[in-house]
Amino acid sequence: MIPEEVIKSLAVESDSRIILILMDGLGDIRQGGKTPLEAARTPNLDFLAAEGTLGLTDPVSPGITPGSGPAHVSLFGYDPIKYQIGRGVLEATGIDMKLEKNDLASRGNFATRDEDGLITDRRAGRISTEENRRLVDALQKNIPEIEDVKIILRSVKEHRFVAVFRGENLQRGVAGTDPQATGVRSLAPSAIVPEAERTARVVMEFIRRADEVLAGEKRANTILLRGFSQLPEIPSMQALFKLNPAAIATYPMYRGLARLVGMKILQTGETIADEFETLQKNWSRFNFFFVHIKKTDSYGEDGNFTAKLKVIEEVDEFIPRVRELGPDVLAITGDHSTPCLLKSHSWHPNPFLLWSKYIRVDEVKSFSEASCAWGGLGRLPAVEAMPLMLANALKLEKFGA
Amino acid sequence: MIPEEVIKSLAVESDSRIILILMDGLGDIRQGGKTPLEAARTPNLDFLAAEGTLGLTDPVSPGITPGSGPAHVSLFGYDPIKYQIGRGVLEATGIDMKLEKNDLASRGNFATRDEDGLITDRRAGRISTEENRRLVDALQKNIPEIEDVKIILRSVKEHRFVAVFRGENLQRGVAGTDPQATGVRSLAPSAIVPEAERTARVVMEFIRRADEVLAGEKRANTILLRGFSQLPEIPSMQALFKLNPAAIATYPMYRGLARLVGMKILQTGETIADEFETLQKNWSRFNFFFVHIKKTDSYGEDGNFTAKLKVIEEVDEFIPRVRELGPDVLAITGDHSTPCLLKSHSWHPNPFLLWSKYIRVDEVKSFSEASCAWGGLGRLPAVEAMPLMLANALKLEKFGA
Repeated sequence: MIPEEVIKSLAVESDSRIILILMDGLGDIRQGGKTPLEAARTPNLDFLAAEGTLGLTDPVSPGITPGSGPAHVSLFGYDPIKYQIGRGVLEATGIDMKLEKNDLASRGNFATRDEDGLITDRRAGRISTEENRRLVDALQKNIPEIEDVKIILRSVKEHRFVAVFRGENLQRGVAGTDPQATGVRSLAPSAIVPEAERTARVVMEFIRRADEVLAGEKRANTILLRGFSQLPEIPSMQALFKLNPAAIATYPMYRGLARLVGMKILQTGETIADEFETLQKNWSRFNFFFVHIKKTDSYGEDGNFTAKLKVIEEVDEFIPRVRELGPDVLAITGDHSTPCLLKSHSWHPNPFLLWSKYIRVDEVKSFSEASCAWGGLGRLPAVEAMPLMLANALKLEKFGA
Repeated sequence: MIPEEVIKSLAVESDSRIILILMDGLGDIRQGGKTPLEAARTPNLDFLAAEGTLGLTDPVSPGITPGSGPAHVSLFGYDPIKYQIGRGVLEATGIDMKLEKNDLASRGNFATRDEDGLITDRRAGRISTEENRRLVDALQKNIPEIEDVKIILRSVKEHRFVAVFRGENLQRGVAGTDPQATGVRSLAPSAIVPEAERTARVVMEFIRRADEVLAGEKRANTILLRGFSQLPEIPSMQALFKLNPAAIATYPMYRGLARLVGMKILQTGETIADEFETLQKNWSRFNFFFVHIKKTDSYGEDGNFTAKLKVIEEVDEFIPRVRELGPDVLAITGDHSTPCLLKSHSWHPNPFLLWSKYIRVDEVKSFSEASCAWGGLGRLPAVEAMPLMLANALKLEKFGA
């Protein structure tokens, strides 16, 4: 990939507009017949494919299954190895928590343990969000701080919460306590590096006291913490690419990821229709739009082929309205694949469709995993998608004389 | 890309011969119909494509539009980010100026300014080369040196000249003075780094005195300097690849680029026929030939589809004669794309054709941008072209035991 300082030196501000439509977990694999993208009726995406060019992008590197963090970071044009975003930070930014520099954030689960201390349910039976709030309030009231480290707790939903540790010299090198299995004890929050020993001690004390507070609970009688992390020092899309970017997403995590790279988060509703309406309303205010469609991934994780297919068809129906806005560049892709067969993220590359006035049109006339393998873009790292979008919007100057 | 020291350790001298035919700005994009390369009648190139293999190469990185410097450097097998060649050095080497180590070279334009000092023409109405020579002589005579820094001036053509500053401790970190716009003043040659302050002062004084000398001129009454640069420390193709390379090019800049990496510059005429005759005449003397065809780029920059197409057809007609020479490896490509629609360099990858006795033949039987997207080489960085040429000439030993 091109070094950051080079792309920064080439980027120019301009009015041309880019839309990136991301169907989360879009890519799939065939189970005998077709993939959801192949089986879906997508006349508008196919038309765009015929007028544009296709390729396959690797979120991180061939064979690597990415989490949502690296999958988005790379698509936003950042090196996913250099800018690793911890789970805790992701979770916190996803509920609009404003983290301070050096805050140590972690993802918390309420969980159930038996009398022997063995974890019987890592999600405490998915308690209600109301119950979650009651418990978080109790913890926050009883444990405001430990050794001058401020404890800041926030409910997310169901069994999930965020625990942020704010104080001097906190280190992220602390192991998560979630054993990722039942019938075993939770793990100790051990220091992975010597500098993190004090941090680990604070975390351990927090867990000990939380267990005391929760001792009377039937289901949520313990907590599991993981993804201890701090804000990455990541340059904004404004600074790096001279873009004025906005994000439209129904799920907190994706808003959080977008915020981390400097995108303005637009208020939107719960449906895909809401999202495209938000795009239309804000069209004149920004020159880069990230539209995140969640349900393709959710249904992939459920193994629900038909539902995933229908989400793709729904997005397809909005394409003509998107084109009417008159974008200079339109990119449609996934962040990673979520095959229904695997019911999880996978390493398969993303179908990537790029359309602009200056595209080198290829011979491929439909949008699918297989057609993308024959596309004019070939196979490339997802981090190259941003320079391609910028170039097609004429937002990059020539490199060298 | 493979590290330089590795390729150097693998390269072996041998008599096998490589020809690299570079049609500058070859790649294009379709405007409704075909690209010039698709529309051109190229039976010989297509035959070569059928017998060889194809791919698409990125001069620098996907989305990055390269100048001629990085586009050639990468095709010659050098990292275009590591070896950045400034405009001044390019211009100087392109007119056969022998630069010394640490010479500070810059590209000069004669320009016109009005009474208020605003630039009204960045090229002084493209004055004749004769007028240019008269003015350069006057400047050279009146300003032989400044503060022990020798000033060396050379006419290029029309409004262009080269200004070289030769002296102790000159630094290239000086901003160009060309505002790249009219109706504004020229910029100050400011020091970009503190070490360059004295250099900036010398440059500023040179411009002040040049303005005095030119005060009576009607059109060329000021100068603009940009691309302050010094010779890069670049290993020669002899040292790195153990080649004995020669360059055939009608335009100075490309001879200059070839000389920078150690190629011997062969005298040739103005036409494509002259160039191929020069190739034939010198066939026994070298084992790597770089043949540069300029006009594909020139016509691309003019937006002249038909003329670009005809240059490609002309090159095609010489292919049988080139093959009769009996090269071991024949590569045909561009350095960057120059689409007629954009009338400028672009980011689109280069069609790349590689032919040798040992090629892995693919299924593609014609030479075009779209066919190259389906070629057996896939999409790869242009810097990988040199190892591929060397390998196919059996000039690279096995890596590792």
